[in-house]
Amino acid sequence: MKRSLGVCYYPEHWPQSVWEYDARRMASAGLKWVRIGEFAWSRLEPSEGCNEFDWLDTAIDVLGQNGLSVILGTPTATPPRWMIDKHPDMLAQDRSGRPRKFGSRRHYCFSSQSYLQECRKIVTKLARRYGKNKWIHAWQIDNEYGCHDTTLSYSDAAKQAFRDWLGQKYQSISALNDAWGNSFWSMTYDNFGQVDLPNLTVTEPNPAHVMDFRRFSSEQLSRFNRVQTDILRQYTSADLLHNYMGREVGFDHYDVGQDLDIASWDSYPIGFLSDRLEASPEHRLAYVNQGDPDMQAFHHDLYRSVGRGRWWVMEQQPGPVNWAPFNPAPLPGMVRLWSWEAFAHGAEAVCYFRWRQLPHGQEQMHAGLLRADDQPTEAMSEIAQIAEELSLFPDVDTVTSDVALVFDYESAWAWNTQPQGQDFDYFRLCFCFYRALRRAGLSVDIVSASDNALDQYAVIFAPGLMTIPSQFPRAENGFAGTVVFGPRTNLKDEKFHTKVPLGPAIPKLDIITKFVESLPPNASIDLNGGGQVLHWFEALEGGADVSLRTIDGRPVIASHDQTHYLAGWLNSEGLDRVVELVCKQSNIQIQKMPEGVRRRETNQAIFTFNYTNAPVSLDGQSIPAAGVAWKKAKAN
Amino acid sequence: MKRSLGVCYYPEHWPQSVWEYDARRMASAGLKWVRIGEFAWSRLEPSEGCNEFDWLDTAIDVLGQNGLSVILGTPTATPPRWMIDKHPDMLAQDRSGRPRKFGSRRHYCFSSQSYLQECRKIVTKLARRYGKNKWIHAWQIDNEYGCHDTTLSYSDAAKQAFRDWLGQKYQSISALNDAWGNSFWSMTYDNFGQVDLPNLTVTEPNPAHVMDFRRFSSEQLSRFNRVQTDILRQYTSADLLHNYMGREVGFDHYDVGQDLDIASWDSYPIGFLSDRLEASPEHRLAYVNQGDPDMQAFHHDLYRSVGRGRWWVMEQQPGPVNWAPFNPAPLPGMVRLWSWEAFAHGAEAVCYFRWRQLPHGQEQMHAGLLRADDQPTEAMSEIAQIAEELSLFPDVDTVTSDVALVFDYESAWAWNTQPQGQDFDYFRLCFCFYRALRRAGLSVDIVSASDNALDQYAVIFAPGLMTIPSQFPRAENGFAGTVVFGPRTNLKDEKFHTKVPLGPAIPKLDIITKFVESLPPNASIDLNGGGQVLHWFEALEGGADVSLRTIDGRPVIASHDQTHYLAGWLNSEGLDRVVELVCKQSNIQIQKMPEGVRRRETNQAIFTFNYTNAPVSLDGQSIPAAGVAWKKAKAN
Amino acid sequence: MKRSLGVCYYPEHWPQSVWEYDARRMASAGLKWVRIGEFAWSRLEPSEGCNEFDWLDTAIDVLGQNGLSVILGTPTATPPRWMIDKHPDMLAQDRSGRPRKFGSRRHYCFSSQSYLQECRKIVTKLARRYGKNKWIHAWQIDNEYGCHDTTLSYSDAAKQAFRDWLGQKYQSISALNDAWGNSFWSMTYDNFGQVDLPNLTVTEPNPAHVMDFRRFSSEQLSRFNRVQTDILRQYTSADLLHNYMGREVGFDHYDVGQDLDIASWDSYPIGFLSDRLEASPEHRLAYVNQGDPDMQAFHHDLYRSVGRGRWWVMEQQPGPVNWAPFNPAPLPGMVRLWSWEAFAHGAEAVCYFRWRQLPHGQEQMHAGLLRADDQPTEAMSEIAQIAEELSLFPDVDTVTSDVALVFDYESAWAWNTQPQGQDFDYFRLCFCFYRALRRAGLSVDIVSASDNALDQYAVIFAPGLMTIPSQFPRAENGFAGTVVFGPRTNLKDEKFHTKVPLGPAIPKLDIITKFVESLPPNASIDLNGGGQVLHWFEALEGGADVSLRTIDGRPVIASHDQTHYLAGWLNSEGLDRVVELVCKQSNIQIQKMPEGVRRRETNQAIFTFNYTNAPVSLDGQSIPAAGVAWKKAKAN
Repeated sequence: MKRSLGVCYYPEHWPQSVWEYDARRMASAGLKWVRIGEFAWSRLEPSEGCNEFDWLDTAIDVLGQNGLSVILGTPTATPPRWMIDKHPDMLAQDRSGRPRKFGSRRHYCFSSQSYLQECRKIVTKLARRYGKNKWIHAWQIDNEYGCHDTTLSYSDAAKQAFRDWLGQKYQSISALNDAWGNSFWSMTYDNFGQVDLPNLTVTEPNPAHVMDFRRFSSEQLSRFNRVQTDILRQYTSADLLHNYMGREVGFDHYDVGQDLDIASWDSYPIGFLSDRLEASPEHRLAYVNQGDPDMQAFHHDLYRSVGRGRWWVMEQQPGPVNWAPFNPAPLPGMVRLWSWEAFAHGAEAVCYFRWRQLPHGQEQMHAGLLRADDQPTEAMSEIAQIAEELSLFPDVDTVTSDVALVFDYESAWAWNTQPQGQDFDYFRLCFCFYRALRRAGLSVDIVSASDNALDQYAVIFAPGLMTIPSQFPRAENGFAGTVVFGPRTNLKDEKFHTKVPLGPAIPKLDIITKFVESLPPNASIDLNGGGQVLHWFEALEGGADVSLRTIDGRPVIASHDQTHYLAGWLNSEGLDRVVELVCKQSNIQIQKMPEGVRRRETNQAIFTFNYTNAPVSLDGQSIPAAGVAWKKAKAN
Repeated sequence: MKRSLGVCYYPEHWPQSVWEYDARRMASAGLKWVRIGEFAWSRLEPSEGCNEFDWLDTAIDVLGQNGLSVILGTPTATPPRWMIDKHPDMLAQDRSGRPRKFGSRRHYCFSSQSYLQECRKIVTKLARRYGKNKWIHAWQIDNEYGCHDTTLSYSDAAKQAFRDWLGQKYQSISALNDAWGNSFWSMTYDNFGQVDLPNLTVTEPNPAHVMDFRRFSSEQLSRFNRVQTDILRQYTSADLLHNYMGREVGFDHYDVGQDLDIASWDSYPIGFLSDRLEASPEHRLAYVNQGDPDMQAFHHDLYRSVGRGRWWVMEQQPGPVNWAPFNPAPLPGMVRLWSWEAFAHGAEAVCYFRWRQLPHGQEQMHAGLLRADDQPTEAMSEIAQIAEELSLFPDVDTVTSDVALVFDYESAWAWNTQPQGQDFDYFRLCFCFYRALRRAGLSVDIVSASDNALDQYAVIFAPGLMTIPSQFPRAENGFAGTVVFGPRTNLKDEKFHTKVPLGPAIPKLDIITKFVESLPPNASIDLNGGGQVLHWFEALEGGADVSLRTIDGRPVIASHDQTHYLAGWLNSEGLDRVVELVCKQSNIQIQKMPEGVRRRETNQAIFTFNYTNAPVSLDGQSIPAAGVAWKKAKAN
Repeated sequence: MKRSLGVCYYPEHWPQSVWEYDARRMASAGLKWVRIGEFAWSRLEPSEGCNEFDWLDTAIDVLGQNGLSVILGTPTATPPRWMIDKHPDMLAQDRSGRPRKFGSRRHYCFSSQSYLQECRKIVTKLARRYGKNKWIHAWQIDNEYGCHDTTLSYSDAAKQAFRDWLGQKYQSISALNDAWGNSFWSMTYDNFGQVDLPNLTVTEPNPAHVMDFRRFSSEQLSRFNRVQTDILRQYTSADLLHNYMGREVGFDHYDVGQDLDIASWDSYPIGFLSDRLEASPEHRLAYVNQGDPDMQAFHHDLYRSVGRGRWWVMEQQPGPVNWAPFNPAPLPGMVRLWSWEAFAHGAEAVCYFRWRQLPHGQEQMHAGLLRADDQPTEAMSEIAQIAEELSLFPDVDTVTSDVALVFDYESAWAWNTQPQGQDFDYFRLCFCFYRALRRAGLSVDIVSASDNALDQYAVIFAPGLMTIPSQFPRAENGFAGTVVFGPRTNLKDEKFHTKVPLGPAIPKLDIITKFVESLPPNASIDLNGGGQVLHWFEALEGGADVSLRTIDGRPVIASHDQTHYLAGWLNSEGLDRVVELVCKQSNIQIQKMPEGVRRRETNQAIFTFNYTNAPVSLDGQSIPAAGVAWKKAKAN
């Protein structure tokens, strides 16, 4: 399959007279895909029941006629104003119980039945009209689920739906009381109608209550998505996809992905560096015009899994954006680097957001491929280069990596619900492992804990996995690979009770977690031989082998053959040692990467990415600042 | 009297079949006391008017038969869910006017009459049934008043009650207008029905308004407590107590203490270090596994006063807890150190929270004496050692110290209401003095400003005391001791007006405070001879002797014979100089303690506590890290 | 005209018996002016429709008889309590939709019609009674508009009025949709009744929506003010004024000023240093007892413009205040320095707040000229000195400076609405330029962008001016002076759309802003030759001359003859270079001032102010710490 480029376009923002001009220019720039329509509900249904599709017919036709393949978005992230008066209950409510009002986007509650009905109507109409349209090759459902903290809603609709969901789940209120442990603090309920949402309690609510509310909310979102995919499947055989947000863990992305053909995500490397990444000031400064060297790759590998192999970048940052705390510009070359990095990780397409900068509205300071005065931005010449390179390049087939990292949404909710130390964050923990693997030059697969093909990996890392599923690869079931559990793996059961004994209850690994410690900043514990424990440490006891200890002799890694339990959150030096130790055991060759340089291996080539602002040399290759290089894969 | 140990136990959390086992094991561990019942309302009254006491009968019997003395808690901190529907007005409201909902604990408003009536009912039933029970030796009223910021409620019930309270206090609205100075900013009221609670005002409300609301709220809480003690006194002669929270200054603890036989408090040294103490990063790190060396002793000395000599630690941290920002584990030895420190300060009993770690609910990560798998934690062996030591030890009779430190709740409200500098906090100020006295090796009594026996002390410190009561010891009334007032002492009258002249109006001490300065961080003022003024400085004028000056000559200590006024908040070096100066004048011998080492003198022994993680030597005694040592008191 | 001194006085706070004594003492202290009445509504109208003016008659008479000129305040900043029950809609609502309650001051919404009617009544009564009173020489309207964040209200009254205002402005909803660009995110409205206030949206609201709400809110405030001035003009020929707050940019001060005869402002140098100024810890510490060396002068120059030449300091800090985060005392001499600095910048009068410290109410810790015990504070002796110096001093006529700095309220709203980098603040930007000009020893005029006499200046600086008005001085219209635009000048049109091309569209200056970057802290860009870009940088392209570049060659200053565009926010060193370059081009002589020393030139004299706490020498003059010196102006 050939990889391709695309762009996000809003015909409703521009006079019809320029559509043709834009379409021709997109095609000649080497773009294949154009995504449209996902915020256009007020143009498609300007008043109740009154639809206007002519303009969209035309736009699709113009784009298609010029050789572009269209992705059509369902417009359900931006319901029109008139609908609020008709269905006041469609608005979500924030944690304080205030309605989240009209005036921007995502102003709806996943539990509103009336809103869901409106969504059914518009999606059905779109599906009927465009399901067989020859220019439309994919459909996007809604837009960036969960963005702006919209998964959780504290509305009355959510409360009623939550009670119904609990009734379905537990069948009897005594089962709920048992599962939540409501004998504690006299929290017992007499009936499901007494259960409220877990906001505005005097002190922290029962974590089991919160966890069920999070599971419920995630399922409501999936159900909302499925209503749309079910309708679309009746009318079209085009691919269905959604564009996920980076570092969004409010709902189960795998679950939504089950109903899609393709996963895609929106990649804003410089925005994310400023907005949603733990990093030292020095790290932020070093990558201020490049983005973090691992953040994009992590999501690439994650969505390859969410999309069961098929994934895109739907929105690629092409220049400075508007929404991060600070919005510097990419170094020359970075747009090409980011794009090639996506392809190296298996993206089928990379689409840029957006075609032309719009002089009004909330995103008027967001760069496009064209400036508002129609002049090309610096990204345009990089795109031309990518398009040419793609045409020459053999295909980029992803290979299964030797190493897998488990990423699990329920675990993210678990440790957010009960961090125990205020800086404990599940994404951060997994990302620390991911970085260490990449510093060792490894390609990584990110996988769900319930993935059926986990035993194909030589090494599996599962830090912070709340509960190890029963089907997880085990030595006693013949799994020949290495598994690294912990820290904080398998310490909870499904009801969010701590295990008895506390943990981690790994077969054949004779250890118990006696107690856990969350460590304040600076209160690190030195490892024997280099490295430190930060943030989290578990006191282990038992007869297992200990392959790493603290300087005062406490176990840090307990092992039985190729199964390891890591008792602490290690710093970079410590994690590098763990990776080295494990890879040595599994005969996986590692190579320490220079600072800011990362590698990705595919069937065809080994790619090297230089995220620094100075040239580097690696294995005889010289890679310029913000540059990418490739050579034939060793396998070939 | 023999000192003893105990534990907090929740029979309602465990199958009845293990109660006997648990009870036997408690007794054999050397525990005498067992507290039960304080969160069990939903088990005692599962639906309106329908009580179930059988299980509690059995639990008490099993515990008693095994030699344990029971403390029975009234369950009013956790009203059951059904009661909310019956009395929606029982919920408190937060400062924003939002109801503080069911789902955790302390979900009630002290001003709700309907809730008070429910409390009367359940307490009467419990008192009737268990008042003469032979195993019950004490009753705990409610649990941790004020915890989770629950003293102040902005509900309608509170508003109505506040208006009534104001009507009683002032009798006429013009008296209120005068007292509050409402001619300022046209804040005059025409009738009590116009007075609102002091929240959500455009800018800061009148401080006199806030102070009356705080006094009212404290009295509502005391009244709530008294309703229960009054009922219990009719049916039982057992001791009544309450378990206060550390660093809780929202209500007048002395006032509540008047209705109790015993004061107790809940001591979480490591939780408090992380959660509620001003400290440098270095200090936090040095005591991360020990807790602050003075925080526990301060509360011990405080509650000895609140309990008029009789006091306990009701909840002693036995391992890592769950609720602080960070939750590290105690060093081996700390549980013993903390326990012995309590006894050295006169605790009749030290009870550990809790018997067994519970795998569900909000506190599932809170260590107990047993792990959830019934294995003993490290605390258990320390407890065994304490139990043995106690059996051998002669009794620990507290002596009246030479030095008293006044601690006054109304002053805490005063400077919280009007900090004048944003880092001014009354507890912090008093704690700075307390630390300086302890660094000098002194034992300290903490006393109420209205204590009748203040003149038994050689030296009294009264920093930040908003108003000096008329009966306070004075030289002109024959008090032969030394008094150190200030900074910020006696600057207000009872109406919360600044005094005219500003202050401090101390008889025979010819000084006036011309004006005060609050100092930003780093804006310190050097003292002549060493030390600094921080946070707060008063410009004094007058003819008094000046025994300490700033480097540029401004008075810092004004003195007349043995009465001193300290014009500034001094740093450690400065306060050490003050303590030295005053003790020299009063012929009190001091001894500079090594860092982290503290001393407590009783009739029988001098105890030395080593809060550091390294051994120390003092006066020929060697004390291990986290260790305690004692020798015969000099007096013996 | 002779400059004079005054004081703020509250006869309603003191017994009538002391008024005479106070008045005589004011007069003998050298004070001419006394402001009264602005918070006295509850005394003037204790119940609905029932007025009491006798006490005010007497107070005015006593003050006047003793030689004082009275400024009478309208009391509309503090409506009495009874009015709230009558007009519940008069309260403003905060951003969360909560009413901002009675209990302090400024508890009203500018859009409440019922409140406006009450204001009309009381002002009419006051105007009728006192309009011709011979002792009253000026009237103050309300008090400190905008203080406590009171310009914006999210009440129903505001919502209705905003809809009406939008209807008037746009005439048709499609015009509004076009202007706001509502095709973006389906934000289209069908009628004005659908438009809500821009709070509580799911993510940021449309910036055009916010800008219109800010314009509307500013106009509501101006209209409120004008209602009062219109009434007063019918009954009096005395001067009308308002006392503005420092660093208050919530409404258009020039616009309000159009209806006044005199602008005045309330100057609290030490409070502002602590409360509302970006500064390094070192800077804060260096000026902790003096206030920032440029903050007062900036406002003096601003309000000279707002008052079209006529301006006062209405409230001058005389000692420590109560409301800032920290409240240290002024160095001896500072009250005189601040007062003379005001006169040097053209103040007609400087009034001190307040006469006597009040022992009750919110400001009981705010110093006055007298202490509460009637003793004079240190400020009193400085005032005596000023009074004597004023009597000897020739008049202080302000001259038009060579240099003008444009300050524009709409631009402040613009960059607050759309900062693009979270530390971008318009006041801060302008203040950086102002400081650089003052470091060069220059006197500066601050001007409105629509000032008709801008072409009298040799150099005009207009950083951050959102839109350059059409009548702005231009070379092509014969303007012979120098103009420095940028950074971020003229990047928006009136509808708050980014310009196409992005900017800055300055005639004859062949440059376009390709894109902009907001820079995180520390991400500075070095200039070629010294200095740095911070916070903000624009990528310019075009054929203009480049007179300053970054070290890597990007244009920083683009120039055509005497028109310059500055592409970045420069640090001090960089701005000093810009000032030097521009002044050289315009033949304006500059002189680098020593740290903390500032100069102001008038027709009669050159004043030098030493804000440091050590003596300095300058041009042969020695100026003590906190001192002021003057010598004959060069022109004389």
